[in-house]
Amino acid sequence: MAPTLDFWFEFASTYSYPAAMRVADAAQARAVTVRWRPFLLGPIFKAQGWDNSPFNLYPAKGRYMWRDLERICAGLDLPFVQPAVFPQNTVLAARVALLALAQDWGEDYCRALYRAEFGEGRDISKPENVAAVLTALGQDADAVMAEAQSDAIKARLRAQTEQAQRASVFGAPSFTAADGELFWGNDRLEAALEWAASAANR
Amino acid sequence: MAPTLDFWFEFASTYSYPAAMRVADAAQARAVTVRWRPFLLGPIFKAQGWDNSPFNLYPAKGRYMWRDLERICAGLDLPFVQPAVFPQNTVLAARVALLALAQDWGEDYCRALYRAEFGEGRDISKPENVAAVLTALGQDADAVMAEAQSDAIKARLRAQTEQAQRASVFGAPSFTAADGELFWGNDRLEAALEWAASAANR
Repeated sequence: MAPTLDFWFEFASTYSYPAAMRVADAAQARAVTVRWRPFLLGPIFKAQGWDNSPFNLYPAKGRYMWRDLERICAGLDLPFVQPAVFPQNTVLAARVALLALAQDWGEDYCRALYRAEFGEGRDISKPENVAAVLTALGQDADAVMAEAQSDAIKARLRAQTEQAQRASVFGAPSFTAADGELFWGNDRLEAALEWAASAANR
Repeated sequence: MAPTLDFWFEFASTYSYPAAMRVADAAQARAVTVRWRPFLLGPIFKAQGWDNSPFNLYPAKGRYMWRDLERICAGLDLPFVQPAVFPQNTVLAARVALLALAQDWGEDYCRALYRAEFGEGRDISKPENVAAVLTALGQDADAVMAEAQSDAIKARLRAQTEQAQRASVFGAPSFTAADGELFWGNDRLEAALEWAASAANR
């Protein structure tokens, strides 16, 4: 059985953008199966006493992050445009992701949404911008968004956020291996894959 | 003229330990000259509203950091012992570093002190532990520590901390290139060296 790695991401998380764009190829190269697990950082930040992104609460760190992200995207040949609104409300985006990931277009949706947000600077809290991504993927945007707002999906997103918290996730992107080992940050993707891939030998 | 990179470090900073242990070799491989610049994080954290290490203020992040550091040290074959006291008062340690770096044993002192703190778990806020490192390096510990507590050295450490702040440094380790480009974190050492080395071509 292929080793697995859980990829915890939040659409408001800047460093989740490069992680989401490269996790599939990186994992395939290591023969690791990735489970994409969208969750909400809001409740987790609130538990740490934050009512906003730490990048807004600590401006020096925030200014650095935007420049760092710009450099990282340039190195990966990823488009980058700093959105005017940050952080964005990602509840709808995450609910749609949960629905999509249960089908075969979930990863494409996640990548397209990240590209809209951080590659084109769009505000993905606006339903019309989520709808545009869905339409471009050949989905019935209205039907998908209606289903994404169902009680079942809402409950699943809450449950997944609680699971993230129980897995000790405190930021995004994070990665957890089957044995519970936690890695945090886009720059830990390789170490996480290495851990997961070599788990069988431990 | 060889390109230069400023290496901003603080002896209380956990991720500065692996950075300090590998920066010399990594820089030599890229033909970059490194300027070791000890500073104090205390005033910089205070300006961000913190009266303690963020790793203590945010326990989930702190628990992760210690595990992450342990993994990083294992990967680099560096000894690692979590000190009982964290963060440690590093004013004396940094003053001695300023003095030592003006001579030819400064980098050896910095590496030896980091090894004592995070490789052996010693409390380097205690003068006798700084003295032991100095003695092992063949220095007259009493004379060095007395000179390190001179008004001139005290003023230089304050000035260097202010310089770090003006360079937008908000954490440690940090690296700044001659053009002011800032990199933060042990895991950005390679990118910082790459930036400095290729500066002549921009």
